[in-house]
Amino acid sequence: MIFKKVFLKVCLMEDCIFCKIVEGKIPCYKVWEDENFLAFLDINPVGVGHTLVIPKKHFSWVWDLPAGRQETPNIGEYFEKVREVALLLKERLGARWVKMSVVGIEIPHAHVHLIPQEVREKVEAKDFSGVLRKLKS
Amino acid sequence: MIFKKVFLKVCLMEDCIFCKIVEGKIPCYKVWEDENFLAFLDINPVGVGHTLVIPKKHFSWVWDLPAGRQETPNIGEYFEKVREVALLLKERLGARWVKMSVVGIEIPHAHVHLIPQEVREKVEAKDFSGVLRKLKS
Repeated sequence: MIFKKVFLKVCLMEDCIFCKIVEGKIPCYKVWEDENFLAFLDINPVGVGHTLVIPKKHFSWVWDLPAGRQETPNIGEYFEKVREVALLLKERLGARWVKMSVVGIEIPHAHVHLIPQEVREKVEAKDFSGVLRKLKS
Repeated sequence: MIFKKVFLKVCLMEDCIFCKIVEGKIPCYKVWEDENFLAFLDINPVGVGHTLVIPKKHFSWVWDLPAGRQETPNIGEYFEKVREVALLLKERLGARWVKMSVVGIEIPHAHVHLIPQEVREKVEAKDFSGVLRKLKS
């Protein structure tokens, strides 16, 4: 636990909003997480269940994650997790498909957008607690 | 070689335009390829160097590629290659960054869009041969 805290301290950036979310200093609507990655609802959703998937360790851009399997986290693991979250969103929200994008350079902490399309479940995009209830049900 | 042809025959879909590109029945402006993946210029580019990266084997959707490392191709390998192509585009075209997206369900053969942003190299998006020359230089 101490090691984990030291590790996070070293890898997180002081002024990065997503690092603050990882640290729990800023709250989020958490969709999913494991040791190395975190998924949470986008606070300005363009659709129901709009989710961001990020590595907990600070990388400025998605393409900065290494390719090799020796290092962790790496790009392959990242998209295994993105896929896992995409399938979760698809199933729980009854989406026809899930759009993915890496866009913009406003927030320099690697993040992938997942935006479920043609959602069957009746819930407002900005009703974050309601969306989370659907996702956990 | 015979094995490879049989393999492709089994894995390709008769009426799939991207499978036809993989087979060489429809030409493409090839950016990069390896045994399992192919990258080629989008014929309707929304920017210079707009590239599609696809698995050669037919999967309808990106999320249909398996997660496990035992099977090949898998989702982790796929995005290792997408990253490789993104970095190639960024470097050779002098792009500031590279947008990625998985959008639309019009062509049911898994494909990822890579769209270089703020490109420094002087070349028209529809001058496909010119773009390829930049990419191979």
